[in-house]
Amino acid sequence: MPNRQTNHSGHTVHVDLKDRSYPIYIGQGLLEKAELLHRHIPGTQVLVVTNETVAPLYLERVCAALAGFDLGRVILPDGEQHKTLETTTRIYDALIDQGFNRSATLVGLGGGVVGDITGFVAATYQRGVHFIQIPTTLLALVDSAVGGKTGVNHPRGKNMIGAFHQPRCVLADTATLSTLPEREFRAGIAEIIKYGLIQDYAFFQWLERQLAQVLARDPAALMYIIEQSCRNKAYVVAADERESGQRALLNLGHTFGHAIETATGYREWLHGEAVAVGMCMAAHLSASMGWMTAKAFERTEALIQAAGLPVLPPPLSPGALRKLMAIDKKATGGRLRLVLLEGIGSAVVTEAFDDQALTATLEHFTAAAGR
Amino acid sequence: MPNRQTNHSGHTVHVDLKDRSYPIYIGQGLLEKAELLHRHIPGTQVLVVTNETVAPLYLERVCAALAGFDLGRVILPDGEQHKTLETTTRIYDALIDQGFNRSATLVGLGGGVVGDITGFVAATYQRGVHFIQIPTTLLALVDSAVGGKTGVNHPRGKNMIGAFHQPRCVLADTATLSTLPEREFRAGIAEIIKYGLIQDYAFFQWLERQLAQVLARDPAALMYIIEQSCRNKAYVVAADERESGQRALLNLGHTFGHAIETATGYREWLHGEAVAVGMCMAAHLSASMGWMTAKAFERTEALIQAAGLPVLPPPLSPGALRKLMAIDKKATGGRLRLVLLEGIGSAVVTEAFDDQALTATLEHFTAAAGR
Repeated sequence: MPNRQTNHSGHTVHVDLKDRSYPIYIGQGLLEKAELLHRHIPGTQVLVVTNETVAPLYLERVCAALAGFDLGRVILPDGEQHKTLETTTRIYDALIDQGFNRSATLVGLGGGVVGDITGFVAATYQRGVHFIQIPTTLLALVDSAVGGKTGVNHPRGKNMIGAFHQPRCVLADTATLSTLPEREFRAGIAEIIKYGLIQDYAFFQWLERQLAQVLARDPAALMYIIEQSCRNKAYVVAADERESGQRALLNLGHTFGHAIETATGYREWLHGEAVAVGMCMAAHLSASMGWMTAKAFERTEALIQAAGLPVLPPPLSPGALRKLMAIDKKATGGRLRLVLLEGIGSAVVTEAFDDQALTATLEHFTAAAGR
Repeated sequence: MPNRQTNHSGHTVHVDLKDRSYPIYIGQGLLEKAELLHRHIPGTQVLVVTNETVAPLYLERVCAALAGFDLGRVILPDGEQHKTLETTTRIYDALIDQGFNRSATLVGLGGGVVGDITGFVAATYQRGVHFIQIPTTLLALVDSAVGGKTGVNHPRGKNMIGAFHQPRCVLADTATLSTLPEREFRAGIAEIIKYGLIQDYAFFQWLERQLAQVLARDPAALMYIIEQSCRNKAYVVAADERESGQRALLNLGHTFGHAIETATGYREWLHGEAVAVGMCMAAHLSASMGWMTAKAFERTEALIQAAGLPVLPPPLSPGALRKLMAIDKKATGGRLRLVLLEGIGSAVVTEAFDDQALTATLEHFTAAAGR
């Protein structure tokens, strides 16, 4: 597990990637700590990218912390449906308009969509410039801002276009969660439950016991779940930066979830909501094959439901879901690869599941959703 | 310098980049040698990308060599003006249409534009798939196919969007040069002269003596200049893959040249032609500051002219050229960085040139072009 340090009235989790290592600063009010940002900006040019929802809340504060730099800003429309190659051109245009060069730094201020797009542009502008993540949603704080996956969606597949590009630091200000709408907050809980399911049984048990405090956004509980999640993610990413093996465990529920998101055009479902259903499906399939107990499936479903997350997919046919799962990038060499559970806290990446059991799981969930 | 091997009735130059090392196979009729391709394709899915000019000449032959693979093909329009983010969507669409996954291999069959676009899509489809270069123009054989630079143009700047992504091999079939139009052939000579200018005086002298054989496309002369150029490029790339220093020497003439290309909308001037003028300008500026002799400038200009390449820019004002140079990505931190010469065979990357001398050189060339 990464080291833990306290040096800015918060905690620091280190992502250990040799010359691409970086700190995740976690704490209340970090947006005001200009020196944390400054020490990770090597040049003079900084472009802050955010969206219409986040801009009125935090953009001025971040720009104030960046006073003295040659500063630009881009405000994107809000929503997963804008995470496209077309939207990236707005950022490239701004960089060129301002004459920004290879020593420029891009700051992604917002949720997962802003972070993924901004990171992709940072990975590809002049073949790579610097990048800093300032996540403002729970999901981004605990997942998408950490690990260097960047990218945009293709109309027919999520994250089909992208690059690995590590940030120079992640600034996770827990104060930004106070303005997060309830639905988005709960969507973030899905990825937190995921860490418990794939490799941290003690964390899963803690969540079962302390969910009420988490949902009440108790500051100590938030600090704990964010740090624990970042530590879990940093551990996996350090072991397998480019997802040649182990890192794929982080995709628990995602192959099912991406199919739901693609089917609904990235509009109706939040990513975390789709992943929540996907984890239920993965747990159901795992239990139906006897890889884990029915009780473990029930605990999984119960925790997800208690977090106010959906446990059933939208009305879709099993065949439609199956077809969309096949296009997911985790498919390799024709055979579908899934992340399944051998118990709570123990996930595996496998192609060796029972195909009929998968069909039965899809039928079970789509039938239940149709009722 | 990289090793040289002979094992397929041709030569092999190795690009030494640790786990990203790869061979450049150079020889007559290599397109027919299916086993050279097969040994570098790890999966079953292959997408060949080419353009309307190259397709009728070589696409069937390459597809025949790839019989047995799950094979797709994309034929792009020909020309630098199509090297855009918009064109990449045609390749992403084809990959998704065919359900291609992370183990897929993209083959770029064509000149620099096809290679750069195909490489960029390979770098970014599902965050990176395999890539093979089959260059069919002299410029691509000796320059753009080697070294892992991929990308597309922005309407206001060349190669502004891109990634470093090394191919698994480069298959340089010298037989493809027989169909190359004379103007494109000569454009390729510009990059070959460049290697002599930046670091290989003996090669420059050889070119001065043997230019007639080269222009007559004498097979032995072609084999020699291609191998010598690939060895020079492989040497520089191995020392500095991501252009943090040394590699920038390869941009001799390019900051001037890109300004010409951008000013003319990537339509009228071939890249090699613009670089040819740019090298004359760099040599003129170097000589005017006394960094090298006037005689060295004259030899440079004479060799470029003898190769049938332009030595004067299109009608543009010095100010317009200067402005377009500033946006070039080699500009760092506000100060323009140029590759200049301290003699034939000895280039330097520098910001420490005399600004008035640059202005005088731009005025000299634009005035001469206006006559």
